[in-house]
Amino acid sequence: MSSVKPVIGFCGLGAMGLGMATNLVKLGYPVKGYDVFSKSVERFEAAGGLAVTSLSDSAAESMYYICMVATAAQAETAMFETYNSRLTTGLSVALPKGATFLLCSTVPAAYAQSVERKLKEIGRDDILFIDSPVSGGAARAANGTLSIMAGGSDAAINQGKTILSEMADTKKLYIVRGGVGAGSNMKMVHQVLAAIHILSVSEAMGAAARFGLNARVVKGAIINSDSWSWMFENRVLRILEEDYFPGVSALTIILKDVGIITSMARLEQFPTPLSSISEQVYLSGLSQGYGPNDDSGMVRIYYPDPVLKVNSEVSSEEQDHHIKLVLNMLMGIYICAASEAIGFAHHLGLPLDQFFELVNDAAGGSKMFRKCGGAMIRAIKGEESVLDYSSVGDLRSICEKMSAVVDEMRRVNCPAYLATGALNLLLLAQKRSGPNATVENVLKIWNV
Amino acid sequence: MSSVKPVIGFCGLGAMGLGMATNLVKLGYPVKGYDVFSKSVERFEAAGGLAVTSLSDSAAESMYYICMVATAAQAETAMFETYNSRLTTGLSVALPKGATFLLCSTVPAAYAQSVERKLKEIGRDDILFIDSPVSGGAARAANGTLSIMAGGSDAAINQGKTILSEMADTKKLYIVRGGVGAGSNMKMVHQVLAAIHILSVSEAMGAAARFGLNARVVKGAIINSDSWSWMFENRVLRILEEDYFPGVSALTIILKDVGIITSMARLEQFPTPLSSISEQVYLSGLSQGYGPNDDSGMVRIYYPDPVLKVNSEVSSEEQDHHIKLVLNMLMGIYICAASEAIGFAHHLGLPLDQFFELVNDAAGGSKMFRKCGGAMIRAIKGEESVLDYSSVGDLRSICEKMSAVVDEMRRVNCPAYLATGALNLLLLAQKRSGPNATVENVLKIWNV
Repeated sequence: MSSVKPVIGFCGLGAMGLGMATNLVKLGYPVKGYDVFSKSVERFEAAGGLAVTSLSDSAAESMYYICMVATAAQAETAMFETYNSRLTTGLSVALPKGATFLLCSTVPAAYAQSVERKLKEIGRDDILFIDSPVSGGAARAANGTLSIMAGGSDAAINQGKTILSEMADTKKLYIVRGGVGAGSNMKMVHQVLAAIHILSVSEAMGAAARFGLNARVVKGAIINSDSWSWMFENRVLRILEEDYFPGVSALTIILKDVGIITSMARLEQFPTPLSSISEQVYLSGLSQGYGPNDDSGMVRIYYPDPVLKVNSEVSSEEQDHHIKLVLNMLMGIYICAASEAIGFAHHLGLPLDQFFELVNDAAGGSKMFRKCGGAMIRAIKGEESVLDYSSVGDLRSICEKMSAVVDEMRRVNCPAYLATGALNLLLLAQKRSGPNATVENVLKIWNV
Repeated sequence: MSSVKPVIGFCGLGAMGLGMATNLVKLGYPVKGYDVFSKSVERFEAAGGLAVTSLSDSAAESMYYICMVATAAQAETAMFETYNSRLTTGLSVALPKGATFLLCSTVPAAYAQSVERKLKEIGRDDILFIDSPVSGGAARAANGTLSIMAGGSDAAINQGKTILSEMADTKKLYIVRGGVGAGSNMKMVHQVLAAIHILSVSEAMGAAARFGLNARVVKGAIINSDSWSWMFENRVLRILEEDYFPGVSALTIILKDVGIITSMARLEQFPTPLSSISEQVYLSGLSQGYGPNDDSGMVRIYYPDPVLKVNSEVSSEEQDHHIKLVLNMLMGIYICAASEAIGFAHHLGLPLDQFFELVNDAAGGSKMFRKCGGAMIRAIKGEESVLDYSSVGDLRSICEKMSAVVDEMRRVNCPAYLATGALNLLLLAQKRSGPNATVENVLKIWNV
């Protein structure tokens, strides 16, 4: 193996991209970084990167290229058109023959497939194209421990694997079978969980505040319970610190991701009720001007004041009762989210075991996904259940718990978008499968 | 028949109550009217009523009594406690022996039943109690042409029928079998349609505005189409005139009614997804300060400016295309609303033919309810369908139409709470019954 590392071209030096590119620099790669914002390029240069002033300069002689722009529209411009009115040509012209191109942005699978098709149409199918969206946030981008879901031809994957490994955690590089589009579909289905869970953190902490609970106590109770989720543990800190400005994860990002989910769901005629509800509530956050803020700032939709300022006198009995309600609310939402995501993954023909493993190690993870999602996947595969039902209960008991929390949220005038959405799904599942049915049967409302 | 009309006691002289009481005065009844707001009593006196200054005065020697307060909590106070800190006693003490008592407020059936039980407990089962909520709005209250849904013992109904007839349209007095509670349940299930339809008017006109359509043109197109509803025809005028202040029908009223629906649904473990979505959006309107405004002011959630100010240049082709989208949106929402209401009515054991007749003559009516709701009821009864499917289409085509409008609403950043909720329900129905299934099959997701 040559000790001289190949040149990597890079465009899209935002929160994620800057971390990814800088990590490659630290690993000894010459990385030519470009962004339409010159400030971002300067920041990259300060971190040891090679600054270039045009997209075509970033591509010239780069046998590897990474595109980490924010949207499919931006990727399309970078690939196929002049860029931001500058007289540069797109990457599809500028990349050297036989280059390996990693599209790491979160885009619809159909878009990734259209890139592959267009490259062929313009005679550039020498470019080895890998559809490889990432997950894990800015911190993991910067230290090369992202989760990456990669799809592409065998030749492309072989060629790109080393660079992908540099950016991903050893155990979190998922080569998804199915070619270009499979990586994006896997990411999209992961985002079903992310989108619902992110909003659930705000709904839970907003309800807790309206119940008069101390936010720190609630945080501790949730993190040490079956209602734990990766998103809760991550976002609750920002809620406690009102750390929304500018925020690590802008609302506009998850809104874009959930838009990919629901538009794909419409194309596939697959119902995604909780993703749709989340999208609508995110849109209402957008119209409140929260777009550029951290997505955890959505808590303000549920409770306008800082949650740490709640200072009501509640007896320890009342406190325990209300904390239990919040825990039950998250449990019900996470069960439905798991079901919606797994149902969609199954519908799209994605490998469910790989999906299960991926989610548990990524931002969409939750205790309920591990338990109940695992049980759902075993049920789809016709395997016997290993779930301890005593810890989850049958549909009747889950519905009763959700009813109790929705009652109480209504009493204190707390919005309950996801809680009512989840309750109605669980009640539909109960209608379908009966009150004594187990949690796997929630999947049946999707006819899985 | 005696030409001297009996004295009627009346409490609750709000928008509806004042009209109802005044109508009885015009018909020659001596009506003793009471309200906690002395202004309301003065207004009633000016209209020819007998003003009294206490609740017990209104009850004394009144062999008929009508209670038209706003909520079950107010009714409870009027019946069983001292009233508004005045040293008067409740109606349950003050009413003469053998009086007929009509509770016309919209309350949960369980509440009406608790009144009957309590009267028995305190030894006042001599009072002939009729649970008789009304529908139709202030204008019809004032001219005695309300729809009334009445439940009670045969003796009570016999005694109260004449007075009920004075307040109701000849063809719109519905004696609902099932005793006390049946009237309230019938009203509640009617309000499933009302609650969803009221919000749908705002969603449709908001989307139309965001599509750049002329509001008057849209209004005409909807009223003359299969997407007509009573609520649309009624509320659209207020939207065009921004007639929200104070507004004929306060948002707080429909919010209270939908709360009765969803809390009853939780008790019954019956899923009501669109009612729940409506409630959540109404709550967000409440937090915007829209509570005392007319419920048609909810359009501001969808489009902040007056819809008549939309003045965009759209080609007539574009206009036709977008109007079609709005029509399709309402059609999909109304089909789901019909299904949710009929499913719930069936679950509660209400007489479906009577429900069908009642809705078609009341504020919950729509062309889709008449067509598709009628077909659903025939299907429940095992009767052959008489529906012209060519005008409605199969589930696949309905889903495709709803997908198209949701796509377009997303493109213009228009909230689509009901549209996405309905689309997801329709997609769930398609999962359950297949794409070629007819519209009656939407009911099957409720296991009906």
